[in-house]
Amino acid sequence: MNQTFDALNRFIERGTRFLVVSHLNPDGDAIGSTLAMGYALRKLGKEVTMVNESPVPDKFLFLPGADEIRLPEEVDGMFDTVIALDCADRARIGTAVNLFAESARVANVDHHVTNDLFGDVNVVVPRAAATAEILFDWIDGGAVDWDDALAGTVYTGLLTDTGGFRYSNATPAVFRKAAKLVETGAHAHRIADLVLETLTMEQIRLIRIALSSLQRSEDGKIAWIRLRREDFEQSGQSRQDVDGIVNYARNIIGVDVGILIRESDAGSVKVSLRSRERVDVGKIAKELGGGGHARAAGFTARGTLDEVEQMILQHVRAELGRDGQ
Amino acid sequence: MNQTFDALNRFIERGTRFLVVSHLNPDGDAIGSTLAMGYALRKLGKEVTMVNESPVPDKFLFLPGADEIRLPEEVDGMFDTVIALDCADRARIGTAVNLFAESARVANVDHHVTNDLFGDVNVVVPRAAATAEILFDWIDGGAVDWDDALAGTVYTGLLTDTGGFRYSNATPAVFRKAAKLVETGAHAHRIADLVLETLTMEQIRLIRIALSSLQRSEDGKIAWIRLRREDFEQSGQSRQDVDGIVNYARNIIGVDVGILIRESDAGSVKVSLRSRERVDVGKIAKELGGGGHARAAGFTARGTLDEVEQMILQHVRAELGRDGQ
Repeated sequence: MNQTFDALNRFIERGTRFLVVSHLNPDGDAIGSTLAMGYALRKLGKEVTMVNESPVPDKFLFLPGADEIRLPEEVDGMFDTVIALDCADRARIGTAVNLFAESARVANVDHHVTNDLFGDVNVVVPRAAATAEILFDWIDGGAVDWDDALAGTVYTGLLTDTGGFRYSNATPAVFRKAAKLVETGAHAHRIADLVLETLTMEQIRLIRIALSSLQRSEDGKIAWIRLRREDFEQSGQSRQDVDGIVNYARNIIGVDVGILIRESDAGSVKVSLRSRERVDVGKIAKELGGGGHARAAGFTARGTLDEVEQMILQHVRAELGRDGQ
Repeated sequence: MNQTFDALNRFIERGTRFLVVSHLNPDGDAIGSTLAMGYALRKLGKEVTMVNESPVPDKFLFLPGADEIRLPEEVDGMFDTVIALDCADRARIGTAVNLFAESARVANVDHHVTNDLFGDVNVVVPRAAATAEILFDWIDGGAVDWDDALAGTVYTGLLTDTGGFRYSNATPAVFRKAAKLVETGAHAHRIADLVLETLTMEQIRLIRIALSSLQRSEDGKIAWIRLRREDFEQSGQSRQDVDGIVNYARNIIGVDVGILIRESDAGSVKVSLRSRERVDVGKIAKELGGGGHARAAGFTARGTLDEVEQMILQHVRAELGRDGQ
């Protein structure tokens, strides 16, 4: 990527005791990048504390060092050298910011195009598929020697942020980096299996309930799933954690738009929209006060499940009609 | 791979009118390889008929040329030059063998270690992740020039036979080939989306029924799903097509062995076994007259669902006990 890492390398050279943080509700790139940076700094002889506002999700605990990522309240003292990974802004760091000294120097390494350059040093590479891809370039450029643990943690970030190499950010460069990581010691099969192929019983129960509620429009072009508050209670699954459920609607052959409509707090209904190839659901979501992009978007509305269901179906039907389908 | 393709190239040079076949119930590698070989032969100026005993599954119909793959009964005449792809033996070709002349010359291109070398020319490369990987090497070695369609069809085979780059056959070489294919014009995102992210309504219904039947052992180490004949009738899904259902059991966090027990023909019950990391389910399946390997195996038993359920649970518990778990 011809990214220069001079400023980051100087930043690291000057420090001795580092706090490494990432965003709250961490995903594979947040955890993988935290661990990779933590390892690399230790190989450079630095003292490292890794922190995340949220506990490491169970499925990442097999990664070497994952059990060393602490909650903010488990850490004593303040840090004056901080590396923030995969955070578009300071708020994404969550309560881990309470561990920064006023005068702390911050390096901000991220791939979000919305990054507000909050660091003293900013390595922001929007064309990178993952923050882990930036770390790949940094390490591969000679920052530290590759080893199994580094390769595996970087691989985890690359794997998860490309949706298992299924998203459009799975570029030739990403595949070449994956090749090198596997060659260097990343256990690609084991990582994919343990990270991507896991379900909790709560998820199983919620999927079952979701599929029971699944409906399709007469022409088969819209499919939607409704989840009530009691469905979450019955499944034991948190209402924040509905990752992937909407895809059961979207993925049905013939469906152009998949919708998940779920009760949130009293009187509020959250809607997730996924589109195959024809409809710009980002446009629909924006009209209704939400956001997203053409293929994945969402919004929150007031009203009952029934009211919001009728409303969103009307909007999607209109958009499908405009498309001449 | 340092595979030589001299014999295959001579075989192709000598022919003018080719029948290209693959195995019945074709998967992504069978379809992708058929299309890639068909294209390549046409680029070489050959006349090509592509045939499969089974209709092309809907999810592959978007691939360029997929609508040209014929059923045997749709094809007139006999062929004396045949290329069989991804078939371990002649029987896998199914009724498409009825289109071979007695004297037909057959090239057998395959990656199955069990291949019985039934061809006049045999290009059998067991270390290849997919037959499409062999075709990659053949094409990349200069057989024909790459183009979008070739790259996409080869990519489809590579993607599906590595479980979306999740199996242990996703080697550095496979990732490098994926990189080159994407660079050359394979629409990796679109192919993954349309091939891997699709469900039929029949599958949705069967998953819902399967999840309702899911049970776990008290220690959480075994999870199993039961499907009765009427469950298949109710879902509309064929009893042959239960791909992936067993993984809902296996993928639950804490589960070592996932089991699918399903009623087959009268009095016969099919059992699929999937193991995470500890138990050799191949050994269990072999003891019970079936086959497979350590992580994925199966067998057929006579008896009722209840009887077979009790029997297999006993075997798996014994094996888990032996493991000292």
